[in-house]
Amino acid sequence: MKDLPLSKVYQLLEPGPVVMLTTARKGRANIMTMSWHMMVEFEPPLIACVVSNANYSFDTLRATKECVIAVPALELAQKVVGVGNCSGRTVDKFKRLGLTPLPAENVTAPLVAECFANLECKVVDTHLVNKFNLFVLEVLKAWIDPAQKHPKTIHHHGYGRFAVDGEVVKLKSSKP
Amino acid sequence: MKDLPLSKVYQLLEPGPVVMLTTARKGRANIMTMSWHMMVEFEPPLIACVVSNANYSFDTLRATKECVIAVPALELAQKVVGVGNCSGRTVDKFKRLGLTPLPAENVTAPLVAECFANLECKVVDTHLVNKFNLFVLEVLKAWIDPAQKHPKTIHHHGYGRFAVDGEVVKLKSSKP
Repeated sequence: MKDLPLSKVYQLLEPGPVVMLTTARKGRANIMTMSWHMMVEFEPPLIACVVSNANYSFDTLRATKECVIAVPALELAQKVVGVGNCSGRTVDKFKRLGLTPLPAENVTAPLVAECFANLECKVVDTHLVNKFNLFVLEVLKAWIDPAQKHPKTIHHHGYGRFAVDGEVVKLKSSKP
Repeated sequence: MKDLPLSKVYQLLEPGPVVMLTTARKGRANIMTMSWHMMVEFEPPLIACVVSNANYSFDTLRATKECVIAVPALELAQKVVGVGNCSGRTVDKFKRLGLTPLPAENVTAPLVAECFANLECKVVDTHLVNKFNLFVLEVLKAWIDPAQKHPKTIHHHGYGRFAVDGEVVKLKSSKP
């Protein structure tokens, strides 16, 4: 994995890919899927996300204030759905899905080796956690896997239906 | 335009398309592009979004607490970029881009006739507006244009580069 400049993080998340979020507590890591996220600031990159309090990850995220956002490409779609359809309460999801946790640099939550990008994050705002399960994260460090060229991300439309990145159009624009 | 059940709104925004946001005040409507948005709740649909205080729309949104989120398909890409690269401070963007404002039912902000979906929204939370320019909206009514079959949305990667919806994959999942 290679460093990705923090100024480019928004280009990963702004297009709305399904991502996975890892957390860890007491030596036990967990992973969930997430589509409810958005950029809030370019640099340092701030990200808002919704982690339902029905999710096993919610308590860990709130307590540790740390997580990793991992971005999977199309090849991982089946595993992404698998992660979303079981709970860390009852299984070790990394083992069950055959995903590889890697140590991060700034947080105890693990990176996901199979994902083409990994963002180490800390929680910086919890004002809307009680009302909306909405956390604001700051990205401390971003990793990119240079071995995965032109990864296609997937975009969830509900119940396992995903639109895959198709053609790329380039139009003249001065806006980041 | 036809009613879309509010329970299906998340399927429009969860995949992360570029959208446009309209506002209106004192008989003058404006429109901006937006990629920083996410779902917060299924039903009634709640949406969080970031509208920079550098945008002309910011003051209007904060004052009127009303807007419309309009979802454009690929065919509108050039106009979407045009909307993003000029300011309502100096031009009537609807006129300049050849977009057609239509009256909404519950808000003074207009629908956009050319967009395949339009969501009438009111602001329901402003706790994070001063700190992050982050608004939470509730969708009051959703419209869909049945004449636009299988619209392909566009996903912004920065500076006018968009990934267009490609193939659709369907995997077994019980999750909405």
